[in-house]
Amino acid sequence: MKLLVINPNISQDVTRLIGTEASRSIRPGTELTLATAPFGVAYIETRAEALIGGYATLQVAAEQYRQHDAIVVAAFGDPGLAALREVLPIPVVGMTEAALVSACMQGGRFSVIAISQRIQAWYRECIAEHGLAGRLASIRALDEPLQHIGRVQENQGDRLIELSRQAVEHDGADTLILAGAPLAGLARDVGHRLSVPVLDGVTCAVTQAQAMVDMSPATPSAGSYAPPPTKGCHGLTPALAELVGRQPVA
Amino acid sequence: MKLLVINPNISQDVTRLIGTEASRSIRPGTELTLATAPFGVAYIETRAEALIGGYATLQVAAEQYRQHDAIVVAAFGDPGLAALREVLPIPVVGMTEAALVSACMQGGRFSVIAISQRIQAWYRECIAEHGLAGRLASIRALDEPLQHIGRVQENQGDRLIELSRQAVEHDGADTLILAGAPLAGLARDVGHRLSVPVLDGVTCAVTQAQAMVDMSPATPSAGSYAPPPTKGCHGLTPALAELVGRQPVA
Amino acid sequence: MKLLVINPNISQDVTRLIGTEASRSIRPGTELTLATAPFGVAYIETRAEALIGGYATLQVAAEQYRQHDAIVVAAFGDPGLAALREVLPIPVVGMTEAALVSACMQGGRFSVIAISQRIQAWYRECIAEHGLAGRLASIRALDEPLQHIGRVQENQGDRLIELSRQAVEHDGADTLILAGAPLAGLARDVGHRLSVPVLDGVTCAVTQAQAMVDMSPATPSAGSYAPPPTKGCHGLTPALAELVGRQPVA
Amino acid sequence: MKLLVINPNISQDVTRLIGTEASRSIRPGTELTLATAPFGVAYIETRAEALIGGYATLQVAAEQYRQHDAIVVAAFGDPGLAALREVLPIPVVGMTEAALVSACMQGGRFSVIAISQRIQAWYRECIAEHGLAGRLASIRALDEPLQHIGRVQENQGDRLIELSRQAVEHDGADTLILAGAPLAGLARDVGHRLSVPVLDGVTCAVTQAQAMVDMSPATPSAGSYAPPPTKGCHGLTPALAELVGRQPVA
Amino acid sequence: MKLLVINPNISQDVTRLIGTEASRSIRPGTELTLATAPFGVAYIETRAEALIGGYATLQVAAEQYRQHDAIVVAAFGDPGLAALREVLPIPVVGMTEAALVSACMQGGRFSVIAISQRIQAWYRECIAEHGLAGRLASIRALDEPLQHIGRVQENQGDRLIELSRQAVEHDGADTLILAGAPLAGLARDVGHRLSVPVLDGVTCAVTQAQAMVDMSPATPSAGSYAPPPTKGCHGLTPALAELVGRQPVA
Amino acid sequence: MKLLVINPNISQDVTRLIGTEASRSIRPGTELTLATAPFGVAYIETRAEALIGGYATLQVAAEQYRQHDAIVVAAFGDPGLAALREVLPIPVVGMTEAALVSACMQGGRFSVIAISQRIQAWYRECIAEHGLAGRLASIRALDEPLQHIGRVQENQGDRLIELSRQAVEHDGADTLILAGAPLAGLARDVGHRLSVPVLDGVTCAVTQAQAMVDMSPATPSAGSYAPPPTKGCHGLTPALAELVGRQPVA
Repeated sequence: MKLLVINPNISQDVTRLIGTEASRSIRPGTELTLATAPFGVAYIETRAEALIGGYATLQVAAEQYRQHDAIVVAAFGDPGLAALREVLPIPVVGMTEAALVSACMQGGRFSVIAISQRIQAWYRECIAEHGLAGRLASIRALDEPLQHIGRVQENQGDRLIELSRQAVEHDGADTLILAGAPLAGLARDVGHRLSVPVLDGVTCAVTQAQAMVDMSPATPSAGSYAPPPTKGCHGLTPALAELVGRQPVA
Repeated sequence: MKLLVINPNISQDVTRLIGTEASRSIRPGTELTLATAPFGVAYIETRAEALIGGYATLQVAAEQYRQHDAIVVAAFGDPGLAALREVLPIPVVGMTEAALVSACMQGGRFSVIAISQRIQAWYRECIAEHGLAGRLASIRALDEPLQHIGRVQENQGDRLIELSRQAVEHDGADTLILAGAPLAGLARDVGHRLSVPVLDGVTCAVTQAQAMVDMSPATPSAGSYAPPPTKGCHGLTPALAELVGRQPVA
Repeated sequence: MKLLVINPNISQDVTRLIGTEASRSIRPGTELTLATAPFGVAYIETRAEALIGGYATLQVAAEQYRQHDAIVVAAFGDPGLAALREVLPIPVVGMTEAALVSACMQGGRFSVIAISQRIQAWYRECIAEHGLAGRLASIRALDEPLQHIGRVQENQGDRLIELSRQAVEHDGADTLILAGAPLAGLARDVGHRLSVPVLDGVTCAVTQAQAMVDMSPATPSAGSYAPPPTKGCHGLTPALAELVGRQPVA
Repeated sequence: MKLLVINPNISQDVTRLIGTEASRSIRPGTELTLATAPFGVAYIETRAEALIGGYATLQVAAEQYRQHDAIVVAAFGDPGLAALREVLPIPVVGMTEAALVSACMQGGRFSVIAISQRIQAWYRECIAEHGLAGRLASIRALDEPLQHIGRVQENQGDRLIELSRQAVEHDGADTLILAGAPLAGLARDVGHRLSVPVLDGVTCAVTQAQAMVDMSPATPSAGSYAPPPTKGCHGLTPALAELVGRQPVA
Repeated sequence: MKLLVINPNISQDVTRLIGTEASRSIRPGTELTLATAPFGVAYIETRAEALIGGYATLQVAAEQYRQHDAIVVAAFGDPGLAALREVLPIPVVGMTEAALVSACMQGGRFSVIAISQRIQAWYRECIAEHGLAGRLASIRALDEPLQHIGRVQENQGDRLIELSRQAVEHDGADTLILAGAPLAGLARDVGHRLSVPVLDGVTCAVTQAQAMVDMSPATPSAGSYAPPPTKGCHGLTPALAELVGRQPVA
Repeated sequence: MKLLVINPNISQDVTRLIGTEASRSIRPGTELTLATAPFGVAYIETRAEALIGGYATLQVAAEQYRQHDAIVVAAFGDPGLAALREVLPIPVVGMTEAALVSACMQGGRFSVIAISQRIQAWYRECIAEHGLAGRLASIRALDEPLQHIGRVQENQGDRLIELSRQAVEHDGADTLILAGAPLAGLARDVGHRLSVPVLDGVTCAVTQAQAMVDMSPATPSAGSYAPPPTKGCHGLTPALAELVGRQPVA
């Protein structure tokens, strides 16, 4: 099974973190291809950045999907997820959705531990869109500017554990989600120091991507995830034009 | 990986259907143990029957969980799911929850195809409890008394496909869930005749159970899924008493 | 009018507390029969214990319902309520549902005062299932291990009042529900020390049970609370088999 | 026990229907006082008419509450209910709220049978405000202009039964609520012709009013149903001024 | 364009505050008529007072609507809004609804700053009825008795700013609504001292009223906002009788 | 006042329709600038197309916002709306949000009339994200492939009116929203043939944009709509980089 894991951000450091954790999470026989957004920002924490990252992810996916069995969108908040899912004939899984459904299957309510104050609003909206606001115990977030997005775990590890403990003790979290690709791998390191299950978004995403391939659901030819109706397009990359437009307008 | 698949009903025929589909859905290296409820009803379609089936499932699980890595509750509606999850130190997955989250990861809305009119109310309530009422396009169900619970697929196959098509065409279903253990395996047979992805509850459940084992989340020692506080009990099977009571009352 | 009040726990002490408060709450002419679960745990605070208690309650109800006009399920969380209601031809009322609807008829929002930290998650889920999460101001709970379930009121009375006051002052409670059968009768004793109406679950349940008998709604022959379709069963008590199965399987 | 039953409409005919059904629904020892709105419309089917009826009801209640133990607002939609409850030291029960909670205690979902097309929007909004939209199976309504509001039952009885049957067969109603004071008493007459429990709003309201008096919850001195803060008022009836204003402005 | 701005309270001081802010908010060419409720209370903070204020507003509107192009209900909580809208052929806008939708168009979540503790429950219910509970970050309110309703801004200005800052810093407010007609104009004065947009209910209401007139939507002849069906009435002012009754009963 | 109206699609025909209706909807003194997406598809009806259109709109807005007082995103579904609002210091209004809030201010429930079957799922999701699913009576849509996106009104006018009437008569719509920029101007032409108010998305959007400028809310320096934290970026247009990145990465 071949998985294409796309980092919607431009940070190669974060792609490496994602790749390391993804490698530890896949089953034997699964092959990983890592891709980094060709344009965008260092890390996504706003709705605007998510839009940019989503479009970059769509371009990457259009270019490379044919060689893969499934795609993982490797940024919390799942930029572009519904769009990719709508136009691609293979399963597409996002870190947030995968983490949320995996947390639900642990039972009870979950808290999300996030890397910045600003990012919380966007996360809250994502969770609400999945209909899971009632399962959210809390979001707790770091409150200092990030020095280096690739070293958040080292620089802020103790604080992240402290936030996690507060979520369990004060907010009633039954499960913790360490959110955001910059935290990839942290759950594996610190899980034993916490008293409830700790989920890693990258682990959840590649695991659920494998599960979706295992189920091999058919590509729809009806409904709102069937290939879009044919229409004119302009200014798209050839690969994307082929997916969404089919009749490039001169 | 060893999975214990428990049929909360007493029908050996249905256990066989579940076993056949589960065998086709697992990965190499996964071993299945099938168990049938030692008491209960032929098939569950009401809240009362779900209570009985849930208790039977809890007894079986208490007896056999030590030899397994995860448990699948193999009746739609997930009788006893939260209870098992709360007291067992291994992942527990239900057909409904697994099918719902898998359907969500296909995108859009799902319809549920059910084996009897009566069963619909209970299914609707289950879906609402998961917070996913907004994702439900419709429930459509057979409207004739079932002759033989182990042969619903043969006797009603065309009608089930017809109901599925109506769900896509009239209700806006983006995914179909063929619900209920008696339909185990049907999706595999008829999926190609339908225009949207068709999910099989047994397939979803064993696949998600494997995924949960892959993630190996820790057993909680805090929160509402930690082992229950110690207290007196009476009249339980020894295995169950050990799990929920710990101090059997004379 | 004859009411059967079933304690889903095995604690005779709690049955006595229930009986005392129920006796003070009924109208002249109403007769009470008290029953204690023949198996189960000392008191229910988890989903697993609720499943056990629910099954025990169903067995008791099946055995004894013929001699009564209505049944009260006397544990907060209403273990087995929907199941009993589905198979019995007489009204069945639970402490939680009765307290919630009675609180709603006081207007505004209610807080629930509970006997243990652990019990809160289950209560929250029960309230949400009734669609009343928007009416819940807060749940506040004792945070020490219970020494003796039959003497919580004596041992923790002041603390319970303190929690109640906090719910009014800090959480905006318009009504208080003292939840859990071990607190039966406490509202009557301490109501004058609190500034909003205080509801006792047992009082609410027997009062609403009487109200349901007064209304004498017909037993449904259609819908999802009609008697379940006939089907084979095995291993049930004869009384229960008659209710849910009708055709015991050899 | 003394109940004041206020018809928020000006129709004496409807007050008589309410009185007849209320008399059949109360327990021995309960005394009824009937009051008719001193101003307003023949029957309420819009939000504007509900505002008028609510104000008229508040005036009647302010004048007469001292001689009673509880008040029933006897129009579906409960005009003025929250207002009365907020300022009066005795329980106040509305037909809609009482019917909805009573229907919930039957289990499952309910349908509402209404006397006019126009009235449906207002009913739907009332049910949603109670948080019970998820329990509503359907609203079905007469579609002809009403000839005489006091004779709807005679003139439209068969049609009302037909609508009720459709709600059970097509909409999945587990309980029926015959809504609106003009239908008072009909459930008693036609219940045996329908296959699910049929609730009469007047019966539910007087029964729940008696239940609230039985529980004798204290009048709050805190929270949002405590007596309103003192403030100046002008142009109110003396009785109302005393309740809401306390310091009539010259 | 002629706007009729109705203060549902009897306080001329507050009408002046409303008028001053409304004058600063309207466009050139818009003419204002101010009206004060002929009966009622000094300021509305309870559901009962809102009922009274709503009825007074309906009377004023019935009397004066013919000379205007739109009506503004100038009390937070929008007393009588739906009723006026239902019977009048011109747009009717309320301070709360206008402020909520305007806040939504700023993006994210809003907090409401209120003039009394008691008023919060009613505001929360209003917001929930609009379906916007998920957009509410918090309500924060003054906690001292108001000395003079027309001088709240002077007497409590610093405290209101402090509450506003807390809403931004601790509750995650993206927008602030200074709620209640007694605060009319305050946003204009203090907006520069706060770090998120600050909305004034009066400004929002007159602006949205102008917008509705600009759109000139047709008066409905169908649906639940069409003129009510003709029916008998009694005891209403002639203008109101003409609107809701049409056939005054002798 | 200067409004920048951006068509997120590449169809100049549709830009012309938008421009014509916008010109008729603005107040004297308001100046319009029309822009068409520099890349994308002919018209947006899927989530993927909305992502593309949203990114194109963000680029246009970044380039041109300095010369304007507010921006209108002129495609139903509001592609990119939250993103633009987050990074721009001027009000940004979308056709959907503007139409929904305007419909809410008409009272009751609205139906959406759409140009294609496929587009309905995306619209439904947009409405749910605004918390207004409870206000949606129905979506009804054309069911034939569109011949020419700029001539839908001419080719399908009668069918659109027929769908509108069905929404009023069968679905209970109190207001109609003719959705999608290709229908710009139609409401003005056909409103008199329908029995409830008919809203045009373009009219609503420019009117609300003017209203937002009238209110002149401050640009936030806190909360989740403050300018995004500074971070590295790559591959963005200079104007966009300045808005979201500030520190272009080499």
